[in-house]
Amino acid sequence: MAIELKENERLDDLQRNGLQIIQKTDGFCFGMDAVLLSGFAAVKPGERALDLGTGTGIIPLLLSAKTEGEHFSALEIQDEIARMAERSVKLNHLENKIEIVHGDIKEASRIFGAASFDVVTTNPPYMNDSHGLKNPTEVKAISRHEVLCTLEDVVREGAKVLKPGGRMYMVHRPHRLIEILGTMKQYKLEPKRMKMVHPFKDKDANMVLIEAVRGGGAWMKVEAPIIVYKEPGVYTDEIYSIYGY
Amino acid sequence: MAIELKENERLDDLQRNGLQIIQKTDGFCFGMDAVLLSGFAAVKPGERALDLGTGTGIIPLLLSAKTEGEHFSALEIQDEIARMAERSVKLNHLENKIEIVHGDIKEASRIFGAASFDVVTTNPPYMNDSHGLKNPTEVKAISRHEVLCTLEDVVREGAKVLKPGGRMYMVHRPHRLIEILGTMKQYKLEPKRMKMVHPFKDKDANMVLIEAVRGGGAWMKVEAPIIVYKEPGVYTDEIYSIYGY
Repeated sequence: MAIELKENERLDDLQRNGLQIIQKTDGFCFGMDAVLLSGFAAVKPGERALDLGTGTGIIPLLLSAKTEGEHFSALEIQDEIARMAERSVKLNHLENKIEIVHGDIKEASRIFGAASFDVVTTNPPYMNDSHGLKNPTEVKAISRHEVLCTLEDVVREGAKVLKPGGRMYMVHRPHRLIEILGTMKQYKLEPKRMKMVHPFKDKDANMVLIEAVRGGGAWMKVEAPIIVYKEPGVYTDEIYSIYGY
Repeated sequence: MAIELKENERLDDLQRNGLQIIQKTDGFCFGMDAVLLSGFAAVKPGERALDLGTGTGIIPLLLSAKTEGEHFSALEIQDEIARMAERSVKLNHLENKIEIVHGDIKEASRIFGAASFDVVTTNPPYMNDSHGLKNPTEVKAISRHEVLCTLEDVVREGAKVLKPGGRMYMVHRPHRLIEILGTMKQYKLEPKRMKMVHPFKDKDANMVLIEAVRGGGAWMKVEAPIIVYKEPGVYTDEIYSIYGY
């Protein structure tokens, strides 16, 4: 089909099932966070998944290729970005499998209904320092800082839209781990599986991947960490494998 | 000095400053957990530390060699084990630096007084399944299962005996991580630093090391993990380094 790229947009190959994605040339692109979350998340045959704050749509695109999930919904509050994600879905002929919805995470349970998904994925804004931002309406600021939604909004709405026994997969920053785990517990999402991501094997973690189960029992597994680089500029084999090369 | 070994006891070299320790031949011995906790914990010059549930006394013995801490107190509820630890202290001529106290963790703040230590270390019983034990009065059962004290007892008493800004260092099992972090928060011990221990680089963590600060602010650092074996039976260089070889 004809590719409808706007000014400041570019087309990138996802190296998986021939998938392509539209991104912006000014740096509003998916990051390794989203790719690692897609690698960590499981969607079983027949399950329905929702991505909260989908941005470019990278997570539903990758999960539609990696899993046998039945359907992927994805919520994005920024109209321009939601439309860009929608064009990526059309470009890949995935309109029957992925639905991009323009809307607010804080209203996710009203938009989609309670207990309506088996899986929720989310790569939410990491930074809770939005009061100091110069341009809090700027696209990148909204995706990175808690301008329009807080961690608690994401966890609360995620818990509501999940069926009992449903699973939430989140990628976030380790420095907020105590708050993340405590908020999940508060909303009856029991953290069950965690994986740290370290840039090098001897460096502090800079991402954490968490699986929580709605109404699950208390038992946590901390899996082997992901190490990103084996030397500066050279990814480990695990990263190449997750990227699907 | 003359070594007073009883039946079922043996003398082991700690490979550090010429230290020796008395252990039991039937398997009541310190584990790698205690050694890794001693490597993870910091005691600064002039500081006073308390070890809750000291067993053989391995943690104060190692910390007295590794750090410039001024004094190390250590609490052990099992009389026979407390006396064995006391004999190890005397054997190493450390009576002026290490005090072994026979007593109950649940009464630590009454025994030592509130806000009386800069540092608390603890390698508490890991298992909360003591209701199923055949011999709940057996020495090893008491050290491994929550027969005589719970996780909450250890955290509550540790928080009480710490000065404001004082630090608790704990080694525990990852499967109880959510409960550990939540209990620490409840008693105003803010978890600040965490390190996972994995037996092999591609295996789940089987220990977690945590530093929490009494009255600290919310910011967590997850440090590079410790990997124990590089191949079956062969320790990694990091483990040899922690063991002080």
